[in-house]
Amino acid sequence: MKLSMYDAAVPVSIRAMNNLATILEKGAAHAEARKLDPAVLIQGRLFPDMFPLARQVQIACDQAKSAAARLTGQEPPKFEDNERTLDELKTRIRRTLDYVGGVSSSAYQGAENRRVGFLLMDPYVLDMDGMQYLRDWVLPNFYFHVVTAYDILRSQGVQIGKQDYLAHAGYAIRRTAS
Amino acid sequence: MKLSMYDAAVPVSIRAMNNLATILEKGAAHAEARKLDPAVLIQGRLFPDMFPLARQVQIACDQAKSAAARLTGQEPPKFEDNERTLDELKTRIRRTLDYVGGVSSSAYQGAENRRVGFLLMDPYVLDMDGMQYLRDWVLPNFYFHVVTAYDILRSQGVQIGKQDYLAHAGYAIRRTAS
Repeated sequence: MKLSMYDAAVPVSIRAMNNLATILEKGAAHAEARKLDPAVLIQGRLFPDMFPLARQVQIACDQAKSAAARLTGQEPPKFEDNERTLDELKTRIRRTLDYVGGVSSSAYQGAENRRVGFLLMDPYVLDMDGMQYLRDWVLPNFYFHVVTAYDILRSQGVQIGKQDYLAHAGYAIRRTAS
Repeated sequence: MKLSMYDAAVPVSIRAMNNLATILEKGAAHAEARKLDPAVLIQGRLFPDMFPLARQVQIACDQAKSAAARLTGQEPPKFEDNERTLDELKTRIRRTLDYVGGVSSSAYQGAENRRVGFLLMDPYVLDMDGMQYLRDWVLPNFYFHVVTAYDILRSQGVQIGKQDYLAHAGYAIRRTAS
């Protein structure tokens, strides 16, 4: 048995986005408990010229939906980048999960050899096969934006921890008898 | 063709650690140019109770070497966590790359079904098969610490960007004719 492209791409991003939604909920609870304007959290960033939280979440979602589309020969759906609240960011995650979850695993057949090319930033294009695209582009980018979203909330004092980021792995953790 | 466990685990971590070494070099150059004590950067953190840069790099390396060991039925080598300079952190990355690079791809044969169990934090143990371990534990953890190391340096004003984090993908970026 080897990892299929579906196995390598989809369950990973579904779980990470579910964890991210929980992390955003903790951010919202934090803002409410401290009577903070939640807009402050969404605009939180680690350095003045780095993207704020909202953009990190948007790009993480875009990586996931673009991968599901491009690896299966579809055009990635466009979502407007107009979220202004943590709730709206959660909705974007939900829409992304709906899209990714709606692509059947059989559609990924042969995805590793599918040619993936798109305009990156004029005049630069990215041109890879599906395996390179998933491994060298989608997953590093996806994780980058999920972790940076986490890091922004963490740096703002939201009480989140590795157990939130790794919540999907809880099934494999058990107490020893001793 | 499907992704082998070796394909999913090894090239990814080798490239990310090489990129991380470059990012640390840029941190060192930044410290030197601004006459900063480099120890300040190594102890940089995003929040008082979050691990500093040095520990983020150590854990990223540990995830990579533990994965190479456990997926191939070996005991992970222990490295002391005593790095005090950015150069010493680069050496740790180099030692990790040597270890990971020294495990042949054939040793990963059947790794997806290999039982992986270890003490997480007394009394909790992690117990997974190799595919779960790689996909649900190693990669999310590895990326978490690599990205957080990047985020710490970025938050300290080091001039690094996505092109450093994604340097490995340069082979697939080209200029359009127009």
